[in-house]
Amino acid sequence: MQILTTVAELRAWRAQAGHVAFVPTMGNLHSGHIALCHEARNRATQKAGKVIASIFVNPIQFGPNEDLSKYPRTFDADCEKLQTAGVDAVFHPGVEELYPYGPQQYFVEPPELQNRLCGEFRPGHFRGVATVVTKLFNLVQPDVAIFGKKDYQQLKVIEGMVRDLNMPVEIVGIDTERADDGLALSSRNGYLTDAERAEAPQLRRTLEGIRSAVQQGERDYASLCERACAELDARGWKTDYIRITNRMDLQAATVDDRALVVLAASQLGRARLIDNLEIDA
Amino acid sequence: MQILTTVAELRAWRAQAGHVAFVPTMGNLHSGHIALCHEARNRATQKAGKVIASIFVNPIQFGPNEDLSKYPRTFDADCEKLQTAGVDAVFHPGVEELYPYGPQQYFVEPPELQNRLCGEFRPGHFRGVATVVTKLFNLVQPDVAIFGKKDYQQLKVIEGMVRDLNMPVEIVGIDTERADDGLALSSRNGYLTDAERAEAPQLRRTLEGIRSAVQQGERDYASLCERACAELDARGWKTDYIRITNRMDLQAATVDDRALVVLAASQLGRARLIDNLEIDA
Repeated sequence: MQILTTVAELRAWRAQAGHVAFVPTMGNLHSGHIALCHEARNRATQKAGKVIASIFVNPIQFGPNEDLSKYPRTFDADCEKLQTAGVDAVFHPGVEELYPYGPQQYFVEPPELQNRLCGEFRPGHFRGVATVVTKLFNLVQPDVAIFGKKDYQQLKVIEGMVRDLNMPVEIVGIDTERADDGLALSSRNGYLTDAERAEAPQLRRTLEGIRSAVQQGERDYASLCERACAELDARGWKTDYIRITNRMDLQAATVDDRALVVLAASQLGRARLIDNLEIDA
Repeated sequence: MQILTTVAELRAWRAQAGHVAFVPTMGNLHSGHIALCHEARNRATQKAGKVIASIFVNPIQFGPNEDLSKYPRTFDADCEKLQTAGVDAVFHPGVEELYPYGPQQYFVEPPELQNRLCGEFRPGHFRGVATVVTKLFNLVQPDVAIFGKKDYQQLKVIEGMVRDLNMPVEIVGIDTERADDGLALSSRNGYLTDAERAEAPQLRRTLEGIRSAVQQGERDYASLCERACAELDARGWKTDYIRITNRMDLQAATVDDRALVVLAASQLGRARLIDNLEIDA
């Protein structure tokens, strides 16, 4: 597996690579990332192409009070996992390689979706994501890029951006990988104490409870989510939101919508956990 | 010369084209555009590649009170000129082909440079330019794109955007083509009456006067521009601005700057004319 740290190395690799499948990550890889790599490997192999992953902890998607400096960096272990998953190259630039002129000046600005759900609690986050993904797409020039559905709103922002800006890349969303007890895999699970880790699957169970209620005909989505939120918080969580939206543009679901998703973000100890569940009402 | 009107046709053409040089235009072509095409032809031929021009009057770079609906459309004459200039293909999409989902949702947002000079008088203009050029770049995927220095601020915005977002395209700026009397060629010259057309070269002469004064040591740039502005307006112009800036980021020039440009925008009758002149102080 080739390790590329500069834009020049990446451009040279790209010129020889043919069809390219791309998995952008912030490192600290777990089985969720590796599932993305397997999908990329399958798609690249079908076109006699290559798989590249990126590992870059992107400063412009972290808020001033977020965990940028503490975000876990585990590059050597990550490379072993990527190699085992059949990844051909990893792009691992330093911050100064992607932002050589100092602060980013030109941003890809998503629509108001960026200010709802997680965006309400992380101002500028999705603008930072859209901008760095645009930069990475322009550098890697992938034919296909793989993202996890765990970051559902992020996936929607990227799908919308690619469609709206005519980016020549296919976006594929992959189901969330979970621990045996149902907890969605996430780098931030590493922030949990043992007791918190035992409590953490409650977020998924809460979403499952909401799904059951909706499937049994409950249509007062606001009250349903409010009760679920109160129950979580009574167990020691600090919930940012639980909301039922349509799957298309993540607007609040109406009683006529059938393709739904329930999304949640809640703080447990030091970890802000997110999860979601698609619901066919 | 191939005429491509859909994204699908363009993508199919691109897949076969090899090295591509691109000239984006809004049509109503004059010798200034053709000079861009000649540069594109030379660069493409060196790489055994193809030249493509686009003709698209982009609604999102026009303000609500601007001349979008009146902007001259002369497609057949444009195609003859492009063919004669050795252009291989023209991309001429309808508005619904580039904006099929209704209003654009994701924008490329330039930094504060977009709000100065012409941006002060055309709010949203450079955001619209940056966004449509991004869309066209993602569609055409050119190796090199040619722009005129007549739209100096636009060229700076595009150069900055390409650098900052790591777009894989080389930007080339070409000197302004002028009529024999010095008037910069522009589609909007067509709005001038005969009397206005006779007066129009005064804009260029004003900029030349400023250049002479700077080269003779004048360093009170603000007063110099203010006097020039008053003189133009006394002749019946309505001047938006005349400013001396550095050539790098178009910030107001200091007495220490050597690589300068003087830029002007002024209304003469129905036409808002712009021009600029580089000055080595």
